[in-house]
Amino acid sequence: MVCASKPNLAFYEALGNEGLDALKRTIKYIPDDIPVIGDAKRGDIGNTAKAYAKAIFVNSGFDATTVNPYLGFDSIEPFIQYRDKGVFILCRTSNAGAVDFQALRCEAETGYRPLFELVALKAKQWNIHGNIGLVVGATYPEELRLIRQSLPDMPLLIPGIGAQGGDIASAVRYGVDAQGEKAILNSSRQIIYASPEKDFAQAARRVASALRDQINYYRPSL
Amino acid sequence: MVCASKPNLAFYEALGNEGLDALKRTIKYIPDDIPVIGDAKRGDIGNTAKAYAKAIFVNSGFDATTVNPYLGFDSIEPFIQYRDKGVFILCRTSNAGAVDFQALRCEAETGYRPLFELVALKAKQWNIHGNIGLVVGATYPEELRLIRQSLPDMPLLIPGIGAQGGDIASAVRYGVDAQGEKAILNSSRQIIYASPEKDFAQAARRVASALRDQINYYRPSL
Repeated sequence: MVCASKPNLAFYEALGNEGLDALKRTIKYIPDDIPVIGDAKRGDIGNTAKAYAKAIFVNSGFDATTVNPYLGFDSIEPFIQYRDKGVFILCRTSNAGAVDFQALRCEAETGYRPLFELVALKAKQWNIHGNIGLVVGATYPEELRLIRQSLPDMPLLIPGIGAQGGDIASAVRYGVDAQGEKAILNSSRQIIYASPEKDFAQAARRVASALRDQINYYRPSL
Repeated sequence: MVCASKPNLAFYEALGNEGLDALKRTIKYIPDDIPVIGDAKRGDIGNTAKAYAKAIFVNSGFDATTVNPYLGFDSIEPFIQYRDKGVFILCRTSNAGAVDFQALRCEAETGYRPLFELVALKAKQWNIHGNIGLVVGATYPEELRLIRQSLPDMPLLIPGIGAQGGDIASAVRYGVDAQGEKAILNSSRQIIYASPEKDFAQAARRVASALRDQINYYRPSL
């Protein structure tokens, strides 16, 4: 289980230049052996996607990012061109609104399948450089199980435990591959808002450690 | 036909802090009677969407923005809460990859419909504050015609003419409402890259004026 840091760009952007400076300092502060995933959720046409990929991978120095699939392959291709970087495509997101479109049953070669499954299958097809992963929320464990079943080797980024209420046990059991790996469970608010007092750093550390222990507890023993 | 400016955030972000400063100066420089649409294409869960909406509408001072529908209503709701701002939901985008998912036929109450049509219908349902519009590429004129037919009053933001090769005549004819209004035709690269020489400002002006004349030429006379 990779221990990753996943800063969300919105909160830095909401602070303007000061926020961007804080983001850069945060990324620099994280030890090099910890992968830093920029939760940018970008999705734009080729020309613009190229500029976003540069902003995220080169300027900000993220090791991986999240991207939105709605615009199709040419919106994702400029990201996967950075072969030493990871690209997590939003598949089944952790929020309530995920059902609005992601759950729609769509026409496919193999009959009617939910949209998020077709996104997962396209991701597999597009993974020519081996650096694509998928975002699947812990709040939809049955969908997580299905996706792991059809993509046994794909890295999965799993948000939704903690503040959003996803169950850790099923997120780990359904999310990991046959080796008990390739599932990145993400918790943000539960950790960064662990305490409003001066002890927030220690409190965040405690919550993060406890969460890691819980995750490892549920990992299947090999 | 509104004459709008539509800065794309990626290119400013790719330049870091200097870019954000340039963006702010650009927006300030545009006269107040010209609406400025931030082509941000954001789509994130409620909590984060709220931060993006603040960054775009309050910090940067845009009059409207584009948003991605893949995450559903709770990703769009924080934007439409700014009732004096416009929110254009990506529906049928102008790029080649648009067919990957947007054209999939999905189960709906009225039989099987392409995903982009279901996005358009949801947008209509969600438009409780009257500030939602749709992005429909000029490169798919038949789809544009269909969407205008089923949403006669919705403002449409229409990219894809110019560098992307969309036809102006059909974009205007199919895009406008019954009064010949509510279609915003956008051209970016054709105008900003009008000349690589010192005369770029004058050249951009010439191309923009010519384009406006062409657009007005095709507007139906009432």
